[in-house]
Amino acid sequence: MIYLDNAATTKVFDESIEIASKYMRDVYGNAGSLHAMGHEAEKALDVARKLIALKLNSAVSEIFFTSGATESNNLVFNAIRNNKARKNKIIISSIEHAAVYKPALFLEKEGFELVIVDVDENGKLDIDKLIENVDEKTALVSIIMVNNELAVVQDIAEISRRLKAINYDGLFHTDATQAVCKLALDVKKLGVDFLSASAHKFHGPKGVGFLYIREKTAFLPMFYGGKQENSYRAGTENVPLITAMAKSFAMCQKNLQESYDRVSSLRDKVYQHALNHADMMPTIDVSLGASPYIISIAYKNVKSEVLLHAFEQKQIAVSSGSACSSKSKKISRILKAINFGDDYNEGVIRVSFSRFTTDSDVDAFLKASDEIIESIKRTK
Amino acid sequence: MIYLDNAATTKVFDESIEIASKYMRDVYGNAGSLHAMGHEAEKALDVARKLIALKLNSAVSEIFFTSGATESNNLVFNAIRNNKARKNKIIISSIEHAAVYKPALFLEKEGFELVIVDVDENGKLDIDKLIENVDEKTALVSIIMVNNELAVVQDIAEISRRLKAINYDGLFHTDATQAVCKLALDVKKLGVDFLSASAHKFHGPKGVGFLYIREKTAFLPMFYGGKQENSYRAGTENVPLITAMAKSFAMCQKNLQESYDRVSSLRDKVYQHALNHADMMPTIDVSLGASPYIISIAYKNVKSEVLLHAFEQKQIAVSSGSACSSKSKKISRILKAINFGDDYNEGVIRVSFSRFTTDSDVDAFLKASDEIIESIKRTK
Repeated sequence: MIYLDNAATTKVFDESIEIASKYMRDVYGNAGSLHAMGHEAEKALDVARKLIALKLNSAVSEIFFTSGATESNNLVFNAIRNNKARKNKIIISSIEHAAVYKPALFLEKEGFELVIVDVDENGKLDIDKLIENVDEKTALVSIIMVNNELAVVQDIAEISRRLKAINYDGLFHTDATQAVCKLALDVKKLGVDFLSASAHKFHGPKGVGFLYIREKTAFLPMFYGGKQENSYRAGTENVPLITAMAKSFAMCQKNLQESYDRVSSLRDKVYQHALNHADMMPTIDVSLGASPYIISIAYKNVKSEVLLHAFEQKQIAVSSGSACSSKSKKISRILKAINFGDDYNEGVIRVSFSRFTTDSDVDAFLKASDEIIESIKRTK
Repeated sequence: MIYLDNAATTKVFDESIEIASKYMRDVYGNAGSLHAMGHEAEKALDVARKLIALKLNSAVSEIFFTSGATESNNLVFNAIRNNKARKNKIIISSIEHAAVYKPALFLEKEGFELVIVDVDENGKLDIDKLIENVDEKTALVSIIMVNNELAVVQDIAEISRRLKAINYDGLFHTDATQAVCKLALDVKKLGVDFLSASAHKFHGPKGVGFLYIREKTAFLPMFYGGKQENSYRAGTENVPLITAMAKSFAMCQKNLQESYDRVSSLRDKVYQHALNHADMMPTIDVSLGASPYIISIAYKNVKSEVLLHAFEQKQIAVSSGSACSSKSKKISRILKAINFGDDYNEGVIRVSFSRFTTDSDVDAFLKASDEIIESIKRTK
C-alpha cells in the first residue's frame, strides 16, 4: 500500500515505538510513586517536557500533556466556559477542524455568541474582518494554523499583533495540529495563549498530545482527581507515550527544513500535474501560503467515493477530507467555506505526505490518477 | 527492585506491548479512514470492544474507550452537570478515589448538594444510611467497588437492589478501577449505569481505559469534535493502546480465579504477620470482604515517609497510599474515614500485589519489615 493519508495519521518512528515499549516493559512505575521506579518515570516526564518546551521556546511549566489535540482544543473552550457573564463572545474561522468547531457550537448552545469569520477562495482568513468583530466581550479567538484539508497557513503571528494593537484582553488559541513538527514554531513569536498538538500527526503514537498554556493564563481543568500536570489534568501520566511523543518531536525537529523542502517538491509535482490536467484542479493556490504536507485536488464531475475506491484498488491510500468526518456524505464544510466550484466539489481528494513519502509514491499516485480519469471517462 | 506497588500501576504484559507495537508499526491507519489501513484499524477496535463487552456481560455498544479511569469518572460527573435544575444531589462514600471525590466537589461548587456517606471502621459503606439519603432530587450515586488503599469491597449489586427497591430513578456509578480483572464482574448483576476502568491497573498500558455506559443512559460528552465512539468521545481512536488493553483484559480473565487464590495466600501471609506483630496492625479486617491485591498495614509510632525510605533502601517498592496523592503530607482522607487509631495513622504502608508477585517477594518484604522496625527501635 502506498500511504498518502498522512494528514489523517502518520507511521510511528521505530525509535519512538522502542521507547514506548521500554517504558511499558522496564520503567513502568507510576510517576506519582515515591520510590525509584516512580522517580525514574517522573524524570522521563520532565525530560520530555523540557525537550518540547525548548524547541517551542516556551517555559517548561507551560507544556501540559493531554490525550491528543481533540482534548487540547476542548480544554481551551472549557477554560472560558465560566466566563459567560463577563465575556461571552467566541470568534473562529470558517475552516476550523471539528475539534474546534464543535466545542464552539456547544458553547454557543450554552449561551455564548459565536462569530465565524470567512476565508477567501484560497482559504485565507480575512484578518480585518476578524479584528472588526473583536470587542470587550470577546473571550476567545481560535484560528487553525494549517487547515487539515486545504493546507492553507494562517498568519498567526500577524493576527496576534493585530489583536494586541487593539488591546484585546481575551484569549487567543491556535490549533496547530497540522503545523507542529512541520513548520518551525516559536510560541513567543506566535503570541498565542494556547497551542494544541497531537503526536500521531508527527510520527508519534496516537492517544497523546500536548497543550501549550501561556503562563498566567486563566484555566479550568476538565479532569479532576490527582494532582498530575499541576492539577490542570488529573490522571496517571502516560509516561510511555509521552516519552515516545518527545522522541518523535525531537526527530522531526532535527531536519525540519530539509523535510519541508523535499516534501515541497513532491507537493509541487502533484500541484503542477493538477494545474495542467483538464479534469483536475487544485483547491487553492499554494503559492499564497500552504503547508506542503497536504494538497487537496478536485476532479471534475466525479464523486470522491468513486475515486477513493479506485485508488484503493490500485493500493493507494488517500482520503476525501478529514478522517474525523470521513463517514459523512455531505460536501465538506471546508470546501463550502472557500465557495469551491460546483463541477468539482464532489470529487475532492486529499493527498498528504510525510518524510516517509518517496518520489516513486508520488509518481505512482499520478499515474494511477490519470488511469482512473481515463477509465471513468470510458465507462461514461 | 521488588515491586509491591501494583495498586499504583502494573507491569504491562509482554504480549500487550507486542500488540501495541504492531499497531504502531504496521497497522497505523486512522480508524476513521476509508481505505484498507483504516478498515484494519477499525476492525481491531471492534474486536477489542467485543472482547471486553463479552466478559463484562454488556452490549458491545455500551463500552466506550477513554484515556483512563480518571477520564471515565469525570465523564460520569459531567453527564449530570446539566441536570442541576431537576436533580441536584450527589451521593458518594467517604472513601472514594480523588478522581470521584474531586469531580463531586467541583459540582458541589457549581451548586449541587453533595452527601458523603460514612463507612465503618472496616471501610464498609453504611448502605442503610445511603438509602436514607436518596430522594427524588438525587442525580447520581457513585460508590467505589474496591478501595485503592484499604482494599475493602463494597457490595455494588446489593446497593443496586436497594436503590431499585425504593424506585431510585437517578444514575448509579461504580469506580471499578481496582476491581476490573481482579474480581469477576457482570454489569447486569451489578446493576450499574456506569462502570469505570483503567488498563494500567491490569497489566495494560497507561493512558487508556473504558467506561461502561448502560444503554439509554443520559450522557453528555466532554470532548466535542469527530464522531468517534458514537460521538460520546471525539478524538482519533488510540487503536494500539486499545488493542493492547483488550489483550491484557483477556489474559487476566483467563485465570482470574487462580490468580485471585494465589494472591490471597500472599496477602494472608502479610495479614497474619501484621496481626501477630506488636508494632504492626492491618488497617481493616480482611475477613469482612477485601480484595487480596491490596493490603494496608499500619506501623506504630513511625512516619510512613521513614518506612518508605527504609524499604526503598532495601530495594522494595511499596507506597504510603494512593500514587495520585503521594506528595501530600497529610493523613489520608481514607484513613480518617475509618477513624484509624492515632498511634498508627502516620505510619501506614500499602502493599499491593499482582500475578507477577512471588512468594519470595513477600518473604523479602516481611523480612525487611522486621529489620526496619528493629532498626528504628534501636535508633530511638
